[in-house]
Amino acid sequence: MQLAETIKLARVEKGLTWTKIAEAIGKDRVWTVAALLGQHPLSAQDAQTVAALLDLGADAVTALQMVPYRGSDPSLVSDPTIYRFHEALSVYGPALKELINEEFGDGIMSAINFRMSVQRRADPQGDRVIVTFDGKFLDYTWNNTEQEVSP
Amino acid sequence: MQLAETIKLARVEKGLTWTKIAEAIGKDRVWTVAALLGQHPLSAQDAQTVAALLDLGADAVTALQMVPYRGSDPSLVSDPTIYRFHEALSVYGPALKELINEEFGDGIMSAINFRMSVQRRADPQGDRVIVTFDGKFLDYTWNNTEQEVSP
Amino acid sequence: MQLAETIKLARVEKGLTWTKIAEAIGKDRVWTVAALLGQHPLSAQDAQTVAALLDLGADAVTALQMVPYRGSDPSLVSDPTIYRFHEALSVYGPALKELINEEFGDGIMSAINFRMSVQRRADPQGDRVIVTFDGKFLDYTWNNTEQEVSP
Amino acid sequence: MQLAETIKLARVEKGLTWTKIAEAIGKDRVWTVAALLGQHPLSAQDAQTVAALLDLGADAVTALQMVPYRGSDPSLVSDPTIYRFHEALSVYGPALKELINEEFGDGIMSAINFRMSVQRRADPQGDRVIVTFDGKFLDYTWNNTEQEVSP
Amino acid sequence: MQLAETIKLARVEKGLTWTKIAEAIGKDRVWTVAALLGQHPLSAQDAQTVAALLDLGADAVTALQMVPYRGSDPSLVSDPTIYRFHEALSVYGPALKELINEEFGDGIMSAINFRMSVQRRADPQGDRVIVTFDGKFLDYTWNNTEQEVSP
Amino acid sequence: MQLAETIKLARVEKGLTWTKIAEAIGKDRVWTVAALLGQHPLSAQDAQTVAALLDLGADAVTALQMVPYRGSDPSLVSDPTIYRFHEALSVYGPALKELINEEFGDGIMSAINFRMSVQRRADPQGDRVIVTFDGKFLDYTWNNTEQEVSP
Amino acid sequence: MQLAETIKLARVEKGLTWTKIAEAIGKDRVWTVAALLGQHPLSAQDAQTVAALLDLGADAVTALQMVPYRGSDPSLVSDPTIYRFHEALSVYGPALKELINEEFGDGIMSAINFRMSVQRRADPQGDRVIVTFDGKFLDYTWNNTEQEVSP
Amino acid sequence: MQLAETIKLARVEKGLTWTKIAEAIGKDRVWTVAALLGQHPLSAQDAQTVAALLDLGADAVTALQMVPYRGSDPSLVSDPTIYRFHEALSVYGPALKELINEEFGDGIMSAINFRMSVQRRADPQGDRVIVTFDGKFLDYTWNNTEQEVSP
Amino acid sequence: MQLAETIKLARVEKGLTWTKIAEAIGKDRVWTVAALLGQHPLSAQDAQTVAALLDLGADAVTALQMVPYRGSDPSLVSDPTIYRFHEALSVYGPALKELINEEFGDGIMSAINFRMSVQRRADPQGDRVIVTFDGKFLDYTWNNTEQEVSP
Amino acid sequence: MQLAETIKLARVEKGLTWTKIAEAIGKDRVWTVAALLGQHPLSAQDAQTVAALLDLGADAVTALQMVPYRGSDPSLVSDPTIYRFHEALSVYGPALKELINEEFGDGIMSAINFRMSVQRRADPQGDRVIVTFDGKFLDYTWNNTEQEVSP
Repeated sequence: MQLAETIKLARVEKGLTWTKIAEAIGKDRVWTVAALLGQHPLSAQDAQTVAALLDLGADAVTALQMVPYRGSDPSLVSDPTIYRFHEALSVYGPALKELINEEFGDGIMSAINFRMSVQRRADPQGDRVIVTFDGKFLDYTWNNTEQEVSP
Repeated sequence: MQLAETIKLARVEKGLTWTKIAEAIGKDRVWTVAALLGQHPLSAQDAQTVAALLDLGADAVTALQMVPYRGSDPSLVSDPTIYRFHEALSVYGPALKELINEEFGDGIMSAINFRMSVQRRADPQGDRVIVTFDGKFLDYTWNNTEQEVSP
Repeated sequence: MQLAETIKLARVEKGLTWTKIAEAIGKDRVWTVAALLGQHPLSAQDAQTVAALLDLGADAVTALQMVPYRGSDPSLVSDPTIYRFHEALSVYGPALKELINEEFGDGIMSAINFRMSVQRRADPQGDRVIVTFDGKFLDYTWNNTEQEVSP
Repeated sequence: MQLAETIKLARVEKGLTWTKIAEAIGKDRVWTVAALLGQHPLSAQDAQTVAALLDLGADAVTALQMVPYRGSDPSLVSDPTIYRFHEALSVYGPALKELINEEFGDGIMSAINFRMSVQRRADPQGDRVIVTFDGKFLDYTWNNTEQEVSP
Repeated sequence: MQLAETIKLARVEKGLTWTKIAEAIGKDRVWTVAALLGQHPLSAQDAQTVAALLDLGADAVTALQMVPYRGSDPSLVSDPTIYRFHEALSVYGPALKELINEEFGDGIMSAINFRMSVQRRADPQGDRVIVTFDGKFLDYTWNNTEQEVSP
Repeated sequence: MQLAETIKLARVEKGLTWTKIAEAIGKDRVWTVAALLGQHPLSAQDAQTVAALLDLGADAVTALQMVPYRGSDPSLVSDPTIYRFHEALSVYGPALKELINEEFGDGIMSAINFRMSVQRRADPQGDRVIVTFDGKFLDYTWNNTEQEVSP
Repeated sequence: MQLAETIKLARVEKGLTWTKIAEAIGKDRVWTVAALLGQHPLSAQDAQTVAALLDLGADAVTALQMVPYRGSDPSLVSDPTIYRFHEALSVYGPALKELINEEFGDGIMSAINFRMSVQRRADPQGDRVIVTFDGKFLDYTWNNTEQEVSP
Repeated sequence: MQLAETIKLARVEKGLTWTKIAEAIGKDRVWTVAALLGQHPLSAQDAQTVAALLDLGADAVTALQMVPYRGSDPSLVSDPTIYRFHEALSVYGPALKELINEEFGDGIMSAINFRMSVQRRADPQGDRVIVTFDGKFLDYTWNNTEQEVSP
Repeated sequence: MQLAETIKLARVEKGLTWTKIAEAIGKDRVWTVAALLGQHPLSAQDAQTVAALLDLGADAVTALQMVPYRGSDPSLVSDPTIYRFHEALSVYGPALKELINEEFGDGIMSAINFRMSVQRRADPQGDRVIVTFDGKFLDYTWNNTEQEVSP
Repeated sequence: MQLAETIKLARVEKGLTWTKIAEAIGKDRVWTVAALLGQHPLSAQDAQTVAALLDLGADAVTALQMVPYRGSDPSLVSDPTIYRFHEALSVYGPALKELINEEFGDGIMSAINFRMSVQRRADPQGDRVIVTFDGKFLDYTWNNTEQEVSP
């Protein structure tokens, strides 16, 4: 988490937006921010581009390329901006499951073959935050011939 | 939760889809399923329509109209279909916060002035689940004249 | 969980093995036991076959066909037979991650497109339990063109 | 955990695979990675071999030989690659217990007299991760003559 | 939290009241204390004013302007002064919900479009602490036409 | 909690507001709702008045007069209407402590010698929920002569 | 747990000691009490003997023979008689590990190939409770030839 | 907690008893130890006296005067000397509540307007630890005229 | 806990004080209330006396004589009357330990060879609740000749 | 815990067994290891002996003599060698309680007036770990004359 903190401070001190950094490496914005906060590995070239923009050292270039142990600090759930998403899942999560099962059958939305966007929609009563979860449907499959998986 | 279980069983026994029930009361699908699982109150008329469709008693008609204590059972997080959404928030939640703050300023996406959809997007490599969170942006405001809130 | 308890008792009272029940519906043994313990839906025909074998009522036939909210009671982790698997993950889990990443790249073993077997291997120093986890590799993919996911 | 972090970074900086390191000490891959992440003690000679490969100091050579307090950080369960194994246990754990009891009688798979492998199986629909748990069966035995254990 | 501790110590060493600091930046007292304890970002000018008053360095000036990850350390709940507010919510929270719903309909008091005051009311039997929560009512709204939120 | 549920349902079926019930016993609204939800004992006469209004039995009359074990079910914190108060304490709790200490000295706001109100304030930008916590200040006192408390 | 409660009450009402019941089935006392509290399966004959002694029904005879999901209710740790054992492990657990490793090498005391006794030792300063844990030593073994465990 | 550790070590190195330190500042023993462990603020003069006795620096003098965030580390509950008090509350807490309510009416013993003593009572069967909790009774009061608390 | 609830209700309906019941069986008040709330076994005669006073059935007479699994429901800690004792331990617990060790040496106050009282002390500024914990001091003893405990 | 880690490393580097260290101070082995891991205070002379053997500094000599806050890090429960003892308590703990009560009456095994041993018993089927808990029985006593404990 140390590196993520360094990056957040450096970004503000350099006066760079996340969007600018994402453009510099030609990647999606959500993906880029997640990667710089320690949730995805960068390619060697992208790590160097980011390090140059933010004045990070050689250690950071290596660290940014390693496959991370993913998942953010659970204590961040108490941040109100993050909490509202958890609250929406608490209220609507079972409804999502019922409708995914109704539309696609028994299975899940992949969180690996997955992408996400954050956007603004103008609205006269106050602009709206639009967040889209977009994952491949995976159905529960099982090969019923036991010998195939026997050692 | 009792009533929600009764409704889930009755729906299957009656051979009704959630979509059908939502159409019967002319409401959005996600909203309708959430309401029937105990997360939103129905109007008296909608409660009666649902009760007629599912053969629910008079007690259920009253119960469906009461403002609920919201929030689903935390143990449901272990269901894989629901868990993937929590995992996505664990990986991307801080990135969402950073980008909401960058685009809108300091504030949150409302989970009250809010709507959500689940949809299918056809894809040759496997159809995709598209879930959209759509909430009004609320910025942190404060009226700095202390006398206004004094008792 | 009620139904699972009923099934476990009925199986013993009827003197049936799990293997026998799996054969009766022509499905894999692990899959069948998991399904009867409430982790997978049965087809209507298989539900009726099982109900006939175990003298279950019509309600059970319906319940066995519903998509379940998956996940077993966390308190079962304290059972020593189940705990040893958790202990193995505590000791070897990070090593599994490192070697999956080394062999396949950044990604996961699917637990949905997945099957599992339990088998006995004879050994002069004491027979061995062989459990195989067999899941499709899913790599972290992301489509870096933001317009595709925009609402 | 400090030493494990140092080893993970050094491995990447040296451009070594885990497989290479396992071969250098002639041990199994899963065992070797687990040992270097702090879950098994190395022999003095193996500790020196590893230290030479990774440029570790004398303290590390000693530390690698100590019997560790085993078990990985529980927060790693949130990493998706590790989580899928826990999810599989949540869904199939009770089924494993039932089938071990049916096949072997009342007892457990040892997690001490135990070994594990990770392998790839080619598959036209996407290669598969095959993880095998292989432990000696231990049955619940008890010597019913109380005097033998009396002080 | 480091910076908050530094600020608390510096305030005492400089002999400044929180009220004095709030006046120096022309902001409400509760808002100012919360901001200096890491719960709100200051403007660049206010950050400099505070840093000058408390002899903080340039890093602090930057840090005070960043949008924080909000929420205080949960262990502070055990402090008796803070605990009494939690106890009051435990005793009266459901009553608050019932009366908000009765007066305003189904919805919430915003904690974002929100302000708070602490005041003293003289009382012959012992002066009283008066704390006012003042937030905009938000009702549960939902636009029932699904196509508006479709991607 | 059983009785509280019965009361909530009876109130809706009788078409009574909480305000009406509070007026019937001549008590404050917040106090009355809290009492009927199991947080304060009623006098014998008030218990009978409430039971008559809501058609409750003799057992309820006795139960309403017993000193309760106070505190609401912690799972209710996830209800959004209740959660916002907890969130406000998480963000502003330490600031409340600092300002109470600055204004009154070392001590607390009593939650026992305490009262609370919920009110509506009209506002052209949306009406506001005003909740007031009003408790006697108690300072940390200690009688420093040890013999007084010796047994 | 229901059956265990029934057995505990029946034992007192019948005026039987645990020792008497253990003698009736010719098993060790600790093993017998654990079995009757739901931690070990009885043979059919022993189950019938116990049921006859305690006037239990046919269902109980079946239930006593099923392999249980082991582990007692964690809330029982607060019972002082049980807690003292946990306290001893908290204070001496790491010392036990160090001395087991020093005496036997890297490994564990089995809790499956295991027996336990409770006895009284007369002592002029107050009799003593002597509890013995007696388990087979299991060392960490691993077969270092990967092909043996390959599927 | 840092300062408390420093004080505990310094006390032993200086060969001072807590009683001696309490006498030096003329305060009660329990109060003094609690204060030096970070639970009460000292006056400036007492802070200097203590610092002189224990060779503490100027920072410590300031820190000892600040109103603390009270409450000890919950992990200390596992210390047997401290645990026994928690166990007594677990066993006798509800009885205390019943008898306080019977003797005084509905209310509490204040933990703020409060003092405590630890003493030895000689006893031929072994001396006894006598700990006295001595707090003002506070009854649940509420002013039932809503307008008094309206803003 | 069922029986405790029955007793609490019966006591109120019969109009009996706890003190009266304690007198009827000639036992201490705190001990009696604790016993009736399920924390101590009664003698057969006392159980019958209590059952006669409160109109309890034969089952209750047996149940009151069984050695209980002690410890009250942890959720009761949130009751303010009970919580204040826990708060006092959180603030003063480590001070109690330091002073017990200073006065008696390394050891504990027994919670088994123990008694407790609740009393009222009149005070012009408000009467005080005086609760006394009175337990035998036990020092950490250990017989350093290993052969004595060898099996 | 710092000091315990230093001691564990120094012991290995010096090539000393725990047994050797215990002999050097003439104390029991379990007691000695527990003391050096921070669970018992050493005498001044023993502390110096140990420090000389392990090359510890003067600070360590002081620290080893202080009465510790006892209890090991709860995360150590996941170590398999330590876990097996906890598992045995989970399976057999209630049986221990029943048999202690049957043999001695209502009471506990003291964990203070207590000693413990670890030993090896040769066995042709694999040597066994024998761990003995040996504590004085304490019965629940209470002096039923309230005036004796009144202040």
